[in-house]
Amino acid sequence: MIHLDTLNAGSTDEFVGALGEIFEHSPWIARRAFPSRPFPTVSFLHDVMMAAVEASSLEEKLALLRAHPELGSKIGRAGEMATASRQEQGALGLDRLSDAQFRIFDGLNREYGKRFDFPFIIAVARHTRTSIQRQLERRLRNDRDAELAAAIREIGYITRLRLVAAVDGPGKPKTDGRLSTHVLNTVTGRPAAGLMVVLKEIGGDADGVLKEAITNADGRTDEPLISGVPLRMGWYEIEFHVGKYFDWEEIPAADPPFLDVVPVHFAIAEPEGHYHVPLIASPWSYSTYRGS
Amino acid sequence: MIHLDTLNAGSTDEFVGALGEIFEHSPWIARRAFPSRPFPTVSFLHDVMMAAVEASSLEEKLALLRAHPELGSKIGRAGEMATASRQEQGALGLDRLSDAQFRIFDGLNREYGKRFDFPFIIAVARHTRTSIQRQLERRLRNDRDAELAAAIREIGYITRLRLVAAVDGPGKPKTDGRLSTHVLNTVTGRPAAGLMVVLKEIGGDADGVLKEAITNADGRTDEPLISGVPLRMGWYEIEFHVGKYFDWEEIPAADPPFLDVVPVHFAIAEPEGHYHVPLIASPWSYSTYRGS
Amino acid sequence: MIHLDTLNAGSTDEFVGALGEIFEHSPWIARRAFPSRPFPTVSFLHDVMMAAVEASSLEEKLALLRAHPELGSKIGRAGEMATASRQEQGALGLDRLSDAQFRIFDGLNREYGKRFDFPFIIAVARHTRTSIQRQLERRLRNDRDAELAAAIREIGYITRLRLVAAVDGPGKPKTDGRLSTHVLNTVTGRPAAGLMVVLKEIGGDADGVLKEAITNADGRTDEPLISGVPLRMGWYEIEFHVGKYFDWEEIPAADPPFLDVVPVHFAIAEPEGHYHVPLIASPWSYSTYRGS
Amino acid sequence: MIHLDTLNAGSTDEFVGALGEIFEHSPWIARRAFPSRPFPTVSFLHDVMMAAVEASSLEEKLALLRAHPELGSKIGRAGEMATASRQEQGALGLDRLSDAQFRIFDGLNREYGKRFDFPFIIAVARHTRTSIQRQLERRLRNDRDAELAAAIREIGYITRLRLVAAVDGPGKPKTDGRLSTHVLNTVTGRPAAGLMVVLKEIGGDADGVLKEAITNADGRTDEPLISGVPLRMGWYEIEFHVGKYFDWEEIPAADPPFLDVVPVHFAIAEPEGHYHVPLIASPWSYSTYRGS
Repeated sequence: MIHLDTLNAGSTDEFVGALGEIFEHSPWIARRAFPSRPFPTVSFLHDVMMAAVEASSLEEKLALLRAHPELGSKIGRAGEMATASRQEQGALGLDRLSDAQFRIFDGLNREYGKRFDFPFIIAVARHTRTSIQRQLERRLRNDRDAELAAAIREIGYITRLRLVAAVDGPGKPKTDGRLSTHVLNTVTGRPAAGLMVVLKEIGGDADGVLKEAITNADGRTDEPLISGVPLRMGWYEIEFHVGKYFDWEEIPAADPPFLDVVPVHFAIAEPEGHYHVPLIASPWSYSTYRGS
Repeated sequence: MIHLDTLNAGSTDEFVGALGEIFEHSPWIARRAFPSRPFPTVSFLHDVMMAAVEASSLEEKLALLRAHPELGSKIGRAGEMATASRQEQGALGLDRLSDAQFRIFDGLNREYGKRFDFPFIIAVARHTRTSIQRQLERRLRNDRDAELAAAIREIGYITRLRLVAAVDGPGKPKTDGRLSTHVLNTVTGRPAAGLMVVLKEIGGDADGVLKEAITNADGRTDEPLISGVPLRMGWYEIEFHVGKYFDWEEIPAADPPFLDVVPVHFAIAEPEGHYHVPLIASPWSYSTYRGS
Repeated sequence: MIHLDTLNAGSTDEFVGALGEIFEHSPWIARRAFPSRPFPTVSFLHDVMMAAVEASSLEEKLALLRAHPELGSKIGRAGEMATASRQEQGALGLDRLSDAQFRIFDGLNREYGKRFDFPFIIAVARHTRTSIQRQLERRLRNDRDAELAAAIREIGYITRLRLVAAVDGPGKPKTDGRLSTHVLNTVTGRPAAGLMVVLKEIGGDADGVLKEAITNADGRTDEPLISGVPLRMGWYEIEFHVGKYFDWEEIPAADPPFLDVVPVHFAIAEPEGHYHVPLIASPWSYSTYRGS
Repeated sequence: MIHLDTLNAGSTDEFVGALGEIFEHSPWIARRAFPSRPFPTVSFLHDVMMAAVEASSLEEKLALLRAHPELGSKIGRAGEMATASRQEQGALGLDRLSDAQFRIFDGLNREYGKRFDFPFIIAVARHTRTSIQRQLERRLRNDRDAELAAAIREIGYITRLRLVAAVDGPGKPKTDGRLSTHVLNTVTGRPAAGLMVVLKEIGGDADGVLKEAITNADGRTDEPLISGVPLRMGWYEIEFHVGKYFDWEEIPAADPPFLDVVPVHFAIAEPEGHYHVPLIASPWSYSTYRGS
């Protein structure tokens, strides 16, 4: 990681050498941002680079878009994309698509390519696969101007993440979100300690356990369920294993207990937001809400 | 259906002719109950018949138990059981067991038969298949006296249902339960009308839609989700389609909405009980509880 | 009470004799409505009478308004008003105003009289004193046309109540509301039986107990807290004595219990509405809402 | 404030000079604790001093009790009590008792003195006046042994507070509690910012506003409602001004709004506990609970 001070003190070549790949195969953006130095904050540096994109010609914008790899394409997976792009797509498991999924993605991608003549660009780190497919379907209905703007907005999200990962210094923009939970036992008026909580991604065919945790003495998990990264837009379930908890606590319940594993399903729409999803429960009742 | 007055006025033979099959292939129970007539209520008639069972010798009790068909056995399905038994088991779908399920039931059943030397008896109309399996597993851990008592208790449930179906008159015992719901919109303080509600059985491999309904102007379903029959002990889900509802009501929500299909999972433990499972919801919060 | 059929079959004089006082000292309204008979419903009869008011000249409307007594005035209380008016005002306790209250009412009333040159008219049966004062203050800010319309709307409410009290027959308009409650114990999942509930009017200096009741086996009061009459617009409190209840039920709580008497404060804005105000409670938590 | 290290390093006289007044006019307790030094923690020091009390003779215990001032007595207020005692009682407002209150306290106090022959001792910083009266009434029903134990337990609470105020160092026992709140708007799924919250003491004749605050962007008050001191056992109300809040937020409500000022009444039973009392609210519903 390079420090903002170093960038501010270095030459054009050093600057472009360090930041040229932040915008996919498009070092000209770093070059045009350079004269605005010194940059007081990382956030400001990103703003200046994005302003250079906005100020560029239509041809330059299209060239920038076309410099991006096809999402989920076979070719895309074969090694042509920038290292940062590969990591982002790999983390999402787009290279682990089933054949059926691949056909859907591939079909939508081709349709998109035909319609707009540039590849579909999305900040994959901010989306689940289910959300990416939804975005693809939606953005296919945009007209070309709206879609150009949408693609550049996504480049903004992508490069903000890359810049935060590449450059150290003051005023880094917020790129991570947080998902946390809390369980209260309304029979005792105490936090529910020792209760199993399971976080899953749901929707599409993307179900999978993301995290299992046991609540601590304060009724919370020691670590937030997700933190330090953007929350991927998409659909989630938290399973609260209240049946076993109340049984261990020897709080009377029916046989079988009215509530056993309580599922809470919700969508995340703000990748940089804080989602607190508590459960206020007795063996016969519960409430939940988006808290803060 | 025969009226209690007719039974009270008739001869022993008429009485036994009418009620002889209430207790599986065991007309002697009706015969022993006959002298206690006149019966003021159907409930009292059932109590007297059960008292005759309780007062009978161990040999008679075992004979009564052994007169019952094997639950889910091939032989059982071939036509030897009393018509009433067949209906009860058919309604549950025990004759539609998959091979894998059948092997589990069959294995447990054989173990039960070896351990207790009489067939496993359960009032199937009060249980889901998942619950029957759970009961079988539990009752296998009983000692013989406890299990004899458990089997006779089940015969009480079975015959109470048969008697209520066969005899008209005052004082019929309560054999049916009720499952109802209600949805309130806390943004408007009004009942949520036009919201889809889906009731499913869950647990084991018995998932299946039992009912779909749309809430009316009072936020309720026109008919209870279940009524007029015993509630089968087991695990259920009600899906509340709040996302579509709030969208139609043009109540602002996130994109995608934080809450879409809200699942509520619960167990029914009292077949003759009233379970009211409401949802008090906004686009960002909900609570539910066992109401009445 | 006279039947609609009788009215439909009688002469003009009989009709006006029966209904002449429905609109305060203004038998001409009944007379103008008469030719529209036969009236299929009581509701339709009222609509026709109100249409006669709407169709009348400004002078006639003003004469109608001025035929009404001064609200709460000394003169008003001395016997000049129609019997029905006297009952409505007495029921509200307007003749039991303290001197301080009387001065406020009287001041506002005088201001109103000066501003509009007709007495302040309001369907007192639909308001608490606190609400009447609030309405007076608000309506003082109307311009003359708006206030004329408001006064006639109130005459509509007043005469609808009088007509429903005077005439029997099909299609009576709904003039009563309902306030009910329900208490659920979330520790046991059962209705809270034997819990004291106290309904009070609050706000202004009008505090007072309207009803005390003990919940029955279903967690409800045997009678709704209010029914059979319009709900008076205004501010209310229901006190739920949960501390004593949980103590009697031997459900563990802190010492002293976290929750003892739970107050729920709310306003009624729809006199003909159904307000259901339940409490879902444990010794450590509760929720309430406007239900239905 | 003196540091534990200094105490551990000093002479007997220095030790007793510093801590002799921790136990009311009873320096012998500090003297007997001295040989156990060095004390690794403040908490351990207190335990050793209390062990010295427990190990003392009945005569010594009674002398300790009798060294305490009469609670709320005229004499007590005249200056004979230890400075620390005076501060504790003054903070509670016991010297601001009305004549009626004084008579009740005085009567109970005299009865107590007659019954037990030592003054009523209570850690006033942990109680409201209402709670003190309740404790007095209860403890009057103790037998002498139970009451002796109760009085010494209170001396433990009193001296723990004094020691924590007098001695710095590691392992200070927890003597403070915390009362906090949080308001969530379930219409928007956001914290309710800008909502007025008023904390009052209720019960007895001790009603009074303890704190007014406006919620911040996170729906919390900038400072906890109470912190840094023990929570006084007693009865409290938090008023949540939701009506004005929803009005400012332009969230539709009835006219007048169903909910305006929402009162939540609760008791504090653990002076060193954390009471979190949130409100989860829409214009038509709310829930609250003891959180953490």
